[in-house]
Amino acid sequence: MNSNLWIEEKFEDFLGLKFKVEKVLFSGQSEFQSVDIVETKGHGKMLLNDGLVMVTERDEFAYHDMISHVPLFAHPSPKNVLVIGGGDGGTAREVLRHSSVDKCTMVEIDSMVVDACREFIPQTAKDLDHEKLTLIIGDGVEFVKSTDEKFDVIIVDSTDPIGPAQPLFGEEFYQDVYKCLSDDGIVVSQGESSWYAMDIQQSLLKVLNTVFPKSYLYSFSNLTYPGGLWSFTFATKKHHPTNDFSAERVEASGLTFDYYNAALHSASFALPNFVKKGLEGLIDND
Amino acid sequence: MNSNLWIEEKFEDFLGLKFKVEKVLFSGQSEFQSVDIVETKGHGKMLLNDGLVMVTERDEFAYHDMISHVPLFAHPSPKNVLVIGGGDGGTAREVLRHSSVDKCTMVEIDSMVVDACREFIPQTAKDLDHEKLTLIIGDGVEFVKSTDEKFDVIIVDSTDPIGPAQPLFGEEFYQDVYKCLSDDGIVVSQGESSWYAMDIQQSLLKVLNTVFPKSYLYSFSNLTYPGGLWSFTFATKKHHPTNDFSAERVEASGLTFDYYNAALHSASFALPNFVKKGLEGLIDND
Repeated sequence: MNSNLWIEEKFEDFLGLKFKVEKVLFSGQSEFQSVDIVETKGHGKMLLNDGLVMVTERDEFAYHDMISHVPLFAHPSPKNVLVIGGGDGGTAREVLRHSSVDKCTMVEIDSMVVDACREFIPQTAKDLDHEKLTLIIGDGVEFVKSTDEKFDVIIVDSTDPIGPAQPLFGEEFYQDVYKCLSDDGIVVSQGESSWYAMDIQQSLLKVLNTVFPKSYLYSFSNLTYPGGLWSFTFATKKHHPTNDFSAERVEASGLTFDYYNAALHSASFALPNFVKKGLEGLIDND
Repeated sequence: MNSNLWIEEKFEDFLGLKFKVEKVLFSGQSEFQSVDIVETKGHGKMLLNDGLVMVTERDEFAYHDMISHVPLFAHPSPKNVLVIGGGDGGTAREVLRHSSVDKCTMVEIDSMVVDACREFIPQTAKDLDHEKLTLIIGDGVEFVKSTDEKFDVIIVDSTDPIGPAQPLFGEEFYQDVYKCLSDDGIVVSQGESSWYAMDIQQSLLKVLNTVFPKSYLYSFSNLTYPGGLWSFTFATKKHHPTNDFSAERVEASGLTFDYYNAALHSASFALPNFVKKGLEGLIDND
């Protein structure tokens, strides 16, 4: 094998992130995108879709903790949860740790991602056969249009708004999301980087604002995405993400986390001024 | 010129950060290190010491806001401030915005960094001739050993603990820092990345704990450093970084910031669990 094998993720034409690769474990081309899993030096196994880093074993807990536990603890008693995307299984894994959750439905468009992660990244995929999980290989856009179910929390764990994920950033999709959320439902969505992709954040938040009474942005630090300061949007029919949240709820759950904690839950909604300014009028963060 | 010029910062043997370069503005070799300033595409002008990215015009406000305004607002009335390192001038620039500050002394070991930034990065170096600034080209280690002055806040704006900055991570240095801090003094130091350099954080915090009654770590997201989640240590003789801080103090200052704000001040001390666990017994963050 090539002893000097690297994967490089380019951002626009001015930034590159290079990761040392020990071994290519899987390379495929699905109907939707290219799917690669490599064993890296320094970051464990890594999933790439269309050449963009999605997940690494080293830091996936940060992303999966923050996309799931923030809405699941902001809601007082989430029972029925929908995950759209998240084919690696890490988000569903974290959702299923909550004892209040009776059912988690996961709708992933690309079976190749799911199958490859089942085989090569069990760290994230290990609960894809959980008894409370309904795994649907299909289009999340179609699912929210046609389902009669009501969900307490919907998590849109999408890739960037290119390729198959593009409709997941549109207004029609979020009107359907609103429709299938319970009266006190919350939707959290992968929200890009404030450093490099504020235009996408603005566009997504404009859509959320047309549909939801209140929208917020919260941030965390992602090790392997360009920009580091990564975000999730939080749109809500009723519950305030921090005022209606209590540390006691986290304590009472008995759950432990490698990234998330109650102080960080609230802290993640405190945004730098350049983010607040860039998203002025689009977020209800105080 | 080379139309495909890139600078690559390697981290260990498994990570590379590549930045597109439009033009090399300055390249020199001082007594201490190599010093390069380049015009990048996407990040403005960039200073590198020994090939490591120190400052870019695009994101320097994040680092300089957080290294300076956190201690300066945690202290009720900082009058005499010492900056060790910080040759680009950005930290002194932010310190000098505080009207309570009567005097700021900056001790930078490498005149080449100062001179090059004066010429090519006025964005950070613009206040190096400020009437309240005493700029000393010399060894910060020697300065704190020999000075009779007492400082309210000391900011150690150092590079990584290699080359000229190595003594700035040692116990002898911090004993001298303690000695020349006022009775309610605070020292904040560049504290590396929790993702990639927790060993350095542990080592630095062990030193701080032998000298100071209380030590803390606070974090922010740095765009151009490997690891993103970057930290500063906060060691204090008296003032608690968040309990003794008030948002009113920030409001009353009349200052505006692109990164820092009162909510972020407190939020930056809320650390992910893996950081709290790795630094257990070494930090007094709650």
